Amino acid sequence: MSATAQLDRSLVENIVRQIVLAQTGAKPAPKAPEPGKPNLVVSISARHCHLTDEHVEVLFGPGAKLIPEKPLYQDGFYAAEQTVMIVGPRRRMLPTVRVLGPTRPHSQVELAFTDSISLGIDAPVRHSGNIKGTPGCVLVGPKGVVELPEGVIRAARHVHMNFDHAAYYGVKNGDLMRLRVESPQCAVVFEDLLVRADKNAKLEVHIDTDEGNACYLDSATKVELTKQDGGCGCKH
Amino acid sequence: MSATAQLDRSLVENIVRQIVLAQTGAKPAPKAPEPGKPNLVVSISARHCHLTDEHVEVLFGPGAKLIPEKPLYQDGFYAAEQTVMIVGPRRRMLPTVRVLGPTRPHSQVELAFTDSISLGIDAPVRHSGNIKGTPGCVLVGPKGVVELPEGVIRAARHVHMNFDHAAYYGVKNGDLMRLRVESPQCAVVFEDLLVRADKNAKLEVHIDTDEGNACYLDSATKVELTKQDGGCGCKH
Repeated sequence: MSATAQLDRSLVENIVRQIVLAQTGAKPAPKAPEPGKPNLVVSISARHCHLTDEHVEVLFGPGAKLIPEKPLYQDGFYAAEQTVMIVGPRRRMLPTVRVLGPTRPHSQVELAFTDSISLGIDAPVRHSGNIKGTPGCVLVGPKGVVELPEGVIRAARHVHMNFDHAAYYGVKNGDLMRLRVESPQCAVVFEDLLVRADKNAKLEVHIDTDEGNACYLDSATKVELTKQDGGCGCKH
Repeated sequence: MSATAQLDRSLVENIVRQIVLAQTGAKPAPKAPEPGKPNLVVSISARHCHLTDEHVEVLFGPGAKLIPEKPLYQDGFYAAEQTVMIVGPRRRMLPTVRVLGPTRPHSQVELAFTDSISLGIDAPVRHSGNIKGTPGCVLVGPKGVVELPEGVIRAARHVHMNFDHAAYYGVKNGDLMRLRVESPQCAVVFEDLLVRADKNAKLEVHIDTDEGNACYLDSATKVELTKQDGGCGCKH
């Protein structure tokens, strides 16, 4: 097994920590790679926001565009140079929340539960884009302010994959899966991962910082993805 | 099922949030209580520290004693009135970390992984008391300062129980168990819970704030504790 752990110790400065755990050649008893088994990447999405074109201009000035700083694992997506301040209802705030691009039809803020507690916002667990009736917040940029009436969520855990991956795991778009993360003294099985199958997606699980910290992802020795109604991946 | 959720939104002010999930009369299809089944309490331990008598006097003044403010679920243990500031190696700090009593033979700081990242301390997962070779930190109180050479840990998840509970679950002191927390859209199975069996203990699982947030414990509809090498509690 080869494991690449990129842990940025500063949650404020870092957006997406990616732990790549190739599923081949596992230690201590190396196995031959299973033919056709896709490489599974588990990524931690730190708090971030998505913006509309209009909100980019309000926050960063007329004519402003998002400036890509770092590509994300999924092709075409990136962490932008820009950050915004998120202000909660009790004037608590998070000073530098990264904007991810490209822009979207609706602005949305994705927080871990720890973040939402510190902001005093009761963010519900939702899948991206499903923001109806969620709490709002205030976004503050260098050139202006946006008052979002809704859009603050805790992103529900999910897994991106293409249709070949879906066939490999025996799942389809909208199904639920289970991720087992084996870490010394703190193994965790995450249930309820929504399958988001798309022609051009890479195989990648997205969990948030709370989930990544609960299983100490950067110390993980093994990750296993299984169909929720199939085997659970536990040791028995 | 009766569920009592006490969620204090301010992590700074609150030490131990306790979610009591009685295992009887579950909704939506109420069942008769299983005879002899013990009530399972799952508690979130927020960051805290334990001090020696000597360190209490250094930090709070000659002759100072811990003053109990709030009893914990385990008889004889309490959150003290006193708090300390924890300072990490890069002069980052947590201003008000609660002291738990009674005093102990060794001072020890227990952090969630999120806390240790914010402090810049690489706290290893350890069971309470097993602090040899762990990182240290500086404790600052109103009357003095203690430089701990070691003792900063991320407390490993564990379950307290008496010997009747151990017999019920078919486990003994030192065994490992598994806790499944069923929450809407974010169910989690925590493996590797160490059994700490003691004559006078109440049945109580201790997880940290990262773990509690990962499974959104205050929204939990069901908790199940099982022997690690037995059934996993997953839906299959």
